[in-house]
Amino acid sequence: MTTSDQKVQLSVWFSSLQSRICEALENLEDEAEHLAPRHVPPGRFERKEWKRQDASHPEQDGGGGTMTLLKGRVFEKAGVNVSTVYGEFPSQFAKEIPGADADPRFWAIGISLVIHPLNPFVPAVHMNTRHIVTSKAWFGGGSDLTPTFEFDEDTNDFHQAFRVACDTHNPDYYPRFKALCDDYFYLPHRQEPRGIGGIFYDNLRSGEAPEDFEKDFAFTRDVGEAFLDIYPKLVRRHMEKPWTESDKQKQMVKRGRYVEFNLLYDRGTKFGLQTGGNVEAILMSLPPMVSWP
Amino acid sequence: MTTSDQKVQLSVWFSSLQSRICEALENLEDEAEHLAPRHVPPGRFERKEWKRQDASHPEQDGGGGTMTLLKGRVFEKAGVNVSTVYGEFPSQFAKEIPGADADPRFWAIGISLVIHPLNPFVPAVHMNTRHIVTSKAWFGGGSDLTPTFEFDEDTNDFHQAFRVACDTHNPDYYPRFKALCDDYFYLPHRQEPRGIGGIFYDNLRSGEAPEDFEKDFAFTRDVGEAFLDIYPKLVRRHMEKPWTESDKQKQMVKRGRYVEFNLLYDRGTKFGLQTGGNVEAILMSLPPMVSWP
Repeated sequence: MTTSDQKVQLSVWFSSLQSRICEALENLEDEAEHLAPRHVPPGRFERKEWKRQDASHPEQDGGGGTMTLLKGRVFEKAGVNVSTVYGEFPSQFAKEIPGADADPRFWAIGISLVIHPLNPFVPAVHMNTRHIVTSKAWFGGGSDLTPTFEFDEDTNDFHQAFRVACDTHNPDYYPRFKALCDDYFYLPHRQEPRGIGGIFYDNLRSGEAPEDFEKDFAFTRDVGEAFLDIYPKLVRRHMEKPWTESDKQKQMVKRGRYVEFNLLYDRGTKFGLQTGGNVEAILMSLPPMVSWP
Repeated sequence: MTTSDQKVQLSVWFSSLQSRICEALENLEDEAEHLAPRHVPPGRFERKEWKRQDASHPEQDGGGGTMTLLKGRVFEKAGVNVSTVYGEFPSQFAKEIPGADADPRFWAIGISLVIHPLNPFVPAVHMNTRHIVTSKAWFGGGSDLTPTFEFDEDTNDFHQAFRVACDTHNPDYYPRFKALCDDYFYLPHRQEPRGIGGIFYDNLRSGEAPEDFEKDFAFTRDVGEAFLDIYPKLVRRHMEKPWTESDKQKQMVKRGRYVEFNLLYDRGTKFGLQTGGNVEAILMSLPPMVSWP
């Protein structure tokens, strides 16, 4: 089981990753001096703390989180959230969660981000990694890219970044986690993928020994590092490219598919809303302007 | 059971209601001459026929429908659809449908409309009525209003129109159907109603005799007539009112709640998407421009 020391390490890591990602995105806001309209100042993240109440034990603290939201000149809306929540799963959910059928108590920590750029040539992105503890403990997460206009170079570089992160740890990871991602981020009603994929993993638990925790945590850290390395490169590649109203309209339609996926299918969104999570944090993923023409 | 003659009567009624509603909305487009920008011509409905394939019997015709869509100067997006579909319910759904557990065959006809006005002071509206035949047969439907800015006069007049339609047929209808509407059009995750309500009814079947079909069909016709009478009055009341960008932004945020309701909770949307319905017709309800700021 995850020890107190390990929980502290997780907490430090997720918070520092959040800070480093926010800093990297703010740096891009600073760099984008040549963007029209030039009088728009560089965006800055605003932090907001929230507290969770455990529905089963409303008298107790159930954890909470730190939401950070930026609305800028490169990023129309970027949210990077870290939350640490604990309590008891409602009985109907406990059955679906590994290790929670006999004892519904859980502890969970994770980072979740969704970035909707202003420029339609810059791809939207999602990244999430988490550690969940019931009578078992495991890691999960992933990252996937949603371009409105697909560029082979972006697709290749994004996949390559996560391939390297995976291959360092286990040669089976990349093919498995890429396939899981393609399978998960798919809109059956439109027979369309949400974007160009990435990786997705869940229930990652190499074993019960402290070394196994270390191993899986190291992989999860590398997924975060891979994101932090590759995404700013893709942004820089396109952020000053001129775009037309028609390009923007295509982006807003593509964002509609994103909304359809998140509200119709996404397990995290449904789970959060049904267990009384923080609505503002859960729905921070929804794009700032969307069109269903 | 619903006879062929009755099916013809239903078909004639739903088609003629569709034409009359489209005409009323086009008349409002013509009237709105004083709207800025004046160079925008009055909107006209465009019709599109679609065919359904029954997944259980792909070789057979499963019906189809007529979608009509207007994008104009009063109505940013208005869709009025009539569909007649038949075939067999997939087995997992058949269990949930009255009279379909032993025999999954069904025949259904209905009209469905969603109107998203351009001016944020004009309320959005939804209306749907339908007749469904399995080994049982029943009517269902309703209408509800979603203003961004609530005006007591609109709320009262809208409710009053449906109260009159209900009271003509049965004094129990209005209180029951109004309560069902309030219950149904509610977003639990935000603890917010979708709008100001209206009426909602389902499984309406007064009995097995031809007079019972006549009675329930007459009520369903009056619900359509009540809509056709009251909604254009509400539009006319507000359509030339000046509005600011901030009013428009509020409307786009309110529309976000509409999207959340339709994709997270609406039974018709889920049912349609999961049974391979026409995606374009089902999602015509989604607003043209939406914001999650």
